[in-house]
Amino acid sequence: MAPVVDVHTHIYPPAYVSLLRSRTDVPYMRTFADNPSAGERLVILPSEDAATSTARGRPIGPEYYEEEEKIKFMDKHNIDISVISLANPWLDWCDASDAASVATQINDDVEQVCSRHPGRLYAFGTLPLSAGADAVVAEIKRLTTLSHFRGVIIGTSGLGNGLDDPALEPIWAALQSTKQLVFLHPHYGLPASVYGDRAAEYGHVLPLALGFPLETTIAITRAILSGVFDKFPGLEMLLAHSGGTLPFLAGRIESCIAHDGHLKQASKIAGRRSIWDILKANIYLDAVVYGEAGLKAAMEASGKDRLMFGTDHPFFPPLEDEDNEWLSVKTNEKAVSGVFGSDDQGRDDVMGGNAVRVLRLG
Amino acid sequence: MAPVVDVHTHIYPPAYVSLLRSRTDVPYMRTFADNPSAGERLVILPSEDAATSTARGRPIGPEYYEEEEKIKFMDKHNIDISVISLANPWLDWCDASDAASVATQINDDVEQVCSRHPGRLYAFGTLPLSAGADAVVAEIKRLTTLSHFRGVIIGTSGLGNGLDDPALEPIWAALQSTKQLVFLHPHYGLPASVYGDRAAEYGHVLPLALGFPLETTIAITRAILSGVFDKFPGLEMLLAHSGGTLPFLAGRIESCIAHDGHLKQASKIAGRRSIWDILKANIYLDAVVYGEAGLKAAMEASGKDRLMFGTDHPFFPPLEDEDNEWLSVKTNEKAVSGVFGSDDQGRDDVMGGNAVRVLRLG
Repeated sequence: MAPVVDVHTHIYPPAYVSLLRSRTDVPYMRTFADNPSAGERLVILPSEDAATSTARGRPIGPEYYEEEEKIKFMDKHNIDISVISLANPWLDWCDASDAASVATQINDDVEQVCSRHPGRLYAFGTLPLSAGADAVVAEIKRLTTLSHFRGVIIGTSGLGNGLDDPALEPIWAALQSTKQLVFLHPHYGLPASVYGDRAAEYGHVLPLALGFPLETTIAITRAILSGVFDKFPGLEMLLAHSGGTLPFLAGRIESCIAHDGHLKQASKIAGRRSIWDILKANIYLDAVVYGEAGLKAAMEASGKDRLMFGTDHPFFPPLEDEDNEWLSVKTNEKAVSGVFGSDDQGRDDVMGGNAVRVLRLG
Repeated sequence: MAPVVDVHTHIYPPAYVSLLRSRTDVPYMRTFADNPSAGERLVILPSEDAATSTARGRPIGPEYYEEEEKIKFMDKHNIDISVISLANPWLDWCDASDAASVATQINDDVEQVCSRHPGRLYAFGTLPLSAGADAVVAEIKRLTTLSHFRGVIIGTSGLGNGLDDPALEPIWAALQSTKQLVFLHPHYGLPASVYGDRAAEYGHVLPLALGFPLETTIAITRAILSGVFDKFPGLEMLLAHSGGTLPFLAGRIESCIAHDGHLKQASKIAGRRSIWDILKANIYLDAVVYGEAGLKAAMEASGKDRLMFGTDHPFFPPLEDEDNEWLSVKTNEKAVSGVFGSDDQGRDDVMGGNAVRVLRLG
């Protein structure tokens, strides 16, 4: 049986935690003097930087930054290997002059964390996006000298203008030539106006459940439409949350392209690769979609050899402390088992075999 | 074999066309003096009201307003029955004092169109939304006296504040008590900022392929979170485009609710119906999702007895005039056949049997 691998699991390494604690603007970490019982809080979005329906920001504890908590979580859920990545918001907010050294520090920290747990931890690297393409390319090349990195995590804004920005081309080229996977992850969500006046009544549900995956869907669609995968046919991306909603909407996107008079006039239709082709050649999906309905679409879109189990740890912890295993993890495991039924090989591949092969683990 | 039924097919009846031709603000219809060769154009969104990458607005011809064109299209594609609805943007832009009489005129027009084609045409009614809840309820009641109406079409903004607006409650109550289905359809999309600077290069793909279904997803999720289906357990909605992306995201929404500390504190978690329950009791999905990946998720979410074939005619016509059958229609038919394989009964139910039963056709 293949090992169980978690490809979607986050950590804030020491260098990043120090940085967040030293800051007073979003993103930052602090215990608020007017509400010390809420403990240390992490504020990563401007919209969280005020006490509204909930306490400011979100609680943050050792599970976010202590490597031993990651290992304990893995042991509890029978996860053999985790491919850890810095949780959002990464470094696009960082002063351009600091970004390169901060990224280096973070990646070196993460390399040491992985080294202390041989065979259990690998990583996706953090890029100094605010410092521009040259600095990013330099860090991508340096990551190949660190033995535990298998790719990089990036947000949907890229260098600030989205993933259809031509300024990203040297970065795509460097990732393609060094065979490093891009783990694409949301952070910004959608403009708050779309959620209406009652959004606060629904806790964090609308921005988290909808904003995140819709952001990912828009970002990857812009990348596809701009021809990123035609220019860089060897570029590979792993999409968070089973692609946002890309598997479900791929057919509609493809149909809209095929029926668009403007694209036809601009000769952008004939000869292009379809989204279905790109999904099966350049894109991997995690299996973090919390149900069989989504997972079936993801599997149909990407193929069962391109789907990889993940947990999104340490996010979505149980609300009841006494819970032993995490509901969020069990929901995703159960969906994988449900979809594969008696196909043990297919289930094992999604639970870890695909990640071992694609990410060259172990 | 059950008849083939198209539940998602639009028309602009004579009363609406006259109104659009009489207007100079969005929405309106006109032939532009500076570009007469582009023919008569329909401008329904503010963003289309300028010549940018394409000619202003979109071409509009007899297929939008001539009932014979609808019948010809049905005959060409072996569609036995169509349940026609006014295409967006309906009447939320209408002067409040005119809205009730305009809605009455439109619905009377549509009733006559249906009467001229016995057994072939039924309809979803148009509501005078800008006139407020009382006028809307009055028209809902009046629709029960017209023999071809089986429900109403509404946009995602409701009375202007979205589908979680308590002011809609008398409307939901009237629809529930008269057993009329709500066909929920997008129109507004998302704020243009999310598409980035290069959006115009991609024709209409981003707002149509993503904006529409994401708008629907947000609207129905807000309705569910606000408890509409708990308060009106007999209310039934048919969601356009297979629910936007609701089938794919239902698991994530459910998980976010279950893990939300604020909702738990407000005692909004215990005892509630899950989204999966609501999908199988209150929601129907059309099968307008252009691929097996999306359709599998839709079927898993709603059950094969709640999925209904549609075409979105007259939108997405072939780009080549010489095409006989429409690619957009064939793509959806092929997806249904592909998903059902040898399950002829299941395929026939989706292609028409479910609509006959749910909408009491024939």
